[in-house]
Amino acid sequence: MTLKEKIKENASLAKIAAGKIKNLSATVKNGILLAIASALEKNEKEILEANRKDLHLTREKKCSCAFIERLTLTRERIKSMADGLRKVASLPDPVGETIGEIVRYNGLRIKKVRVPLGVIGIIYESRPNVTCDAAGLCLKSGNAVLLRGGSFAFNSNLCLVKIMIEAALPKGLPEGSIQFIETTEREAIGELICLDEFIDVIIPRGGEEMIKNIKSNSSVPVITHGKGLCHIYVDKEAILEQAQKICFNAKVQRPGVCNAMETLLIHKDIAKEFLPKMVKIFEEAAVELRGCKKTKKIVSSIKEATVEDWETEYLSLILSIKIVDSLNEAIEHINQYGSQHSEAIITENKERAEQFLSRVDAASVYWNASTRFSDGEEFGLGAEIGISTQKLHARGPMGLRELTTYKFLIYGNGQIRT
Amino acid sequence: MTLKEKIKENASLAKIAAGKIKNLSATVKNGILLAIASALEKNEKEILEANRKDLHLTREKKCSCAFIERLTLTRERIKSMADGLRKVASLPDPVGETIGEIVRYNGLRIKKVRVPLGVIGIIYESRPNVTCDAAGLCLKSGNAVLLRGGSFAFNSNLCLVKIMIEAALPKGLPEGSIQFIETTEREAIGELICLDEFIDVIIPRGGEEMIKNIKSNSSVPVITHGKGLCHIYVDKEAILEQAQKICFNAKVQRPGVCNAMETLLIHKDIAKEFLPKMVKIFEEAAVELRGCKKTKKIVSSIKEATVEDWETEYLSLILSIKIVDSLNEAIEHINQYGSQHSEAIITENKERAEQFLSRVDAASVYWNASTRFSDGEEFGLGAEIGISTQKLHARGPMGLRELTTYKFLIYGNGQIRT
Repeated sequence: MTLKEKIKENASLAKIAAGKIKNLSATVKNGILLAIASALEKNEKEILEANRKDLHLTREKKCSCAFIERLTLTRERIKSMADGLRKVASLPDPVGETIGEIVRYNGLRIKKVRVPLGVIGIIYESRPNVTCDAAGLCLKSGNAVLLRGGSFAFNSNLCLVKIMIEAALPKGLPEGSIQFIETTEREAIGELICLDEFIDVIIPRGGEEMIKNIKSNSSVPVITHGKGLCHIYVDKEAILEQAQKICFNAKVQRPGVCNAMETLLIHKDIAKEFLPKMVKIFEEAAVELRGCKKTKKIVSSIKEATVEDWETEYLSLILSIKIVDSLNEAIEHINQYGSQHSEAIITENKERAEQFLSRVDAASVYWNASTRFSDGEEFGLGAEIGISTQKLHARGPMGLRELTTYKFLIYGNGQIRT
Repeated sequence: MTLKEKIKENASLAKIAAGKIKNLSATVKNGILLAIASALEKNEKEILEANRKDLHLTREKKCSCAFIERLTLTRERIKSMADGLRKVASLPDPVGETIGEIVRYNGLRIKKVRVPLGVIGIIYESRPNVTCDAAGLCLKSGNAVLLRGGSFAFNSNLCLVKIMIEAALPKGLPEGSIQFIETTEREAIGELICLDEFIDVIIPRGGEEMIKNIKSNSSVPVITHGKGLCHIYVDKEAILEQAQKICFNAKVQRPGVCNAMETLLIHKDIAKEFLPKMVKIFEEAAVELRGCKKTKKIVSSIKEATVEDWETEYLSLILSIKIVDSLNEAIEHINQYGSQHSEAIITENKERAEQFLSRVDAASVYWNASTRFSDGEEFGLGAEIGISTQKLHARGPMGLRELTTYKFLIYGNGQIRT
């Protein structure tokens, strides 16, 4: 069987499974999730063994520390994966929810109900925890899932999926509902994203280049978990101490994630007071700063920022700083360079805050809080499959509901159209 | 200026306009819609003159009657276009609606509010009425719109858009909010669908081939108003008289539309009684019938159906008929050949009806009613930009809400993430 045939078989099996898994009750789905959680903990040794194989292979390649850190499983991580699945089991089932209901002039009753999307393909980096998270969320939302994890995590993923399936089938999971694309060949992705006959949506998670590539080549609709080039604008009426805390948190607490701040915008009227203190705090935390010309006039020691800086999602302890003349300039800078992910204003002025909230075009817009809260858990969704930076279907943190669509059920007693 | 540059200019102007039109109040938007409606009626002569030019050009080409009928404007049609805009003015404004609100453990207040998509590109056939409908719906939902109508309606569209803009600007429409792509060159479509930097969504309306083409080449997200290969399944427990009326209505009342029936499925137990009567009714209405082998055993006079028939959206007075052994066979046929548009079951058996409603994978699933009701107006949306046959973002009839997205507004007082 060629790679193409193999993947087509996976997808066609998934489509059949989707027709079954969508009808499972919440009780059955939760039972499966809990069984998988226990099985992961029980088979901890086997998982760690498989993960060691993966880690061993990375030694021959030049992988970054962060990469290896994300690939590494520990006892604690396995426990946390299992607890994640238990958490998903405790969330309300989105499937079957009535979203709207109307009785029309002719007696037709039209009900809009939430249903699973069908088959979801998830393409992700070498992070074995995503394998279980994604499988759990797709299962709970009644979808079949095709998992294509990064090739460095191949053995870990193979082992995790085997354990999940072995635990799930006896509890009623339809065969084919959770499938791992068993190949490290890159071509597998190209095959997967062309199977619109079987797959309803592709969710790519990973680097910008990979996502762009999938988006432009996929015949299956894509929900992009895009990049986060987030800004914080410190207005002239900000409480400076509060602004410092928020900016520090947004940059330093976890710089490698998509909701971290990449560019700090400061109103000119407070720059002289705010900037030196803020720079000191950042420098103490080893943040590399790059400032616009006006910034350098106040803090001459830092590097000058270029247009490239405004366009860069550093995902590390680097921050670009720009002094702006007005709220307007801040908003325009954000709408030009931002990635429509998370943006914040720090101000005590209600009118300007509302202008910012309304005019900034992003999934999440904050007033006096850190952008770091953009997250399914923090937004009360219970769990998260990703953060969408597109406008269609889902925007911002995506939970179980965002893995569903709806259908109209129309109840009549012989109505015809005249 | 090259075609490419011209269209890029249109799109970039639209993006600037989108930043303004999204903030217009309902009052201002409704005022604009009413002004346009009056202007259309007032400039009726000019519109009819432009339309005559278009009609004149079709005489040199071989155009079908249906094509010319759709292209033709009359006094009544102009009145009905104006009334359509007045109707849109009377609908509630979807923009700014609070969809959800939650206060989190840390005091963060998170509000999910409805906002316009931004810039919408509409690509459609030579139907000048769509020009006004689409412009009205995009305007009311706070979006800027780029209109690319079929080239045979060029003069009509040019005239309509000119009149709309002249009436709208003095009432507060931001310049660039409604733009007509002023070229009949086919390449314009190719240029338009690559401008993801400026355009947020493309809605193609028209033939299957055109939509497929746009879908596979667009870098802008597409909402497809796809084909309707609709089925009605007459169950063994159907009230046969009711079934006849519904089937006749679904096929004959307006055969050229997407929610008309293309294939009739009949349970074997009632076929002998139901089929001859139904065939007689259809033949009296000049419907050409094509049946499966079992159908031909009962009504030998009709043509035999092939697999191609199950796959064809006739959009005319042709119907394929298949006798099935069970509800299961009916559902499987529909899920295999249907286009996920509108499907119906006629039965008095609640259990089988519910099986059908749940297992058939389509935007609209009917129990004892004609599929012809799949329509924004009939579903209570007030108006319709199209009927989506995809699962992401919008499914089934799309009204004003489906032309929006949402954003999260997060109100804090210094919250940072720990």
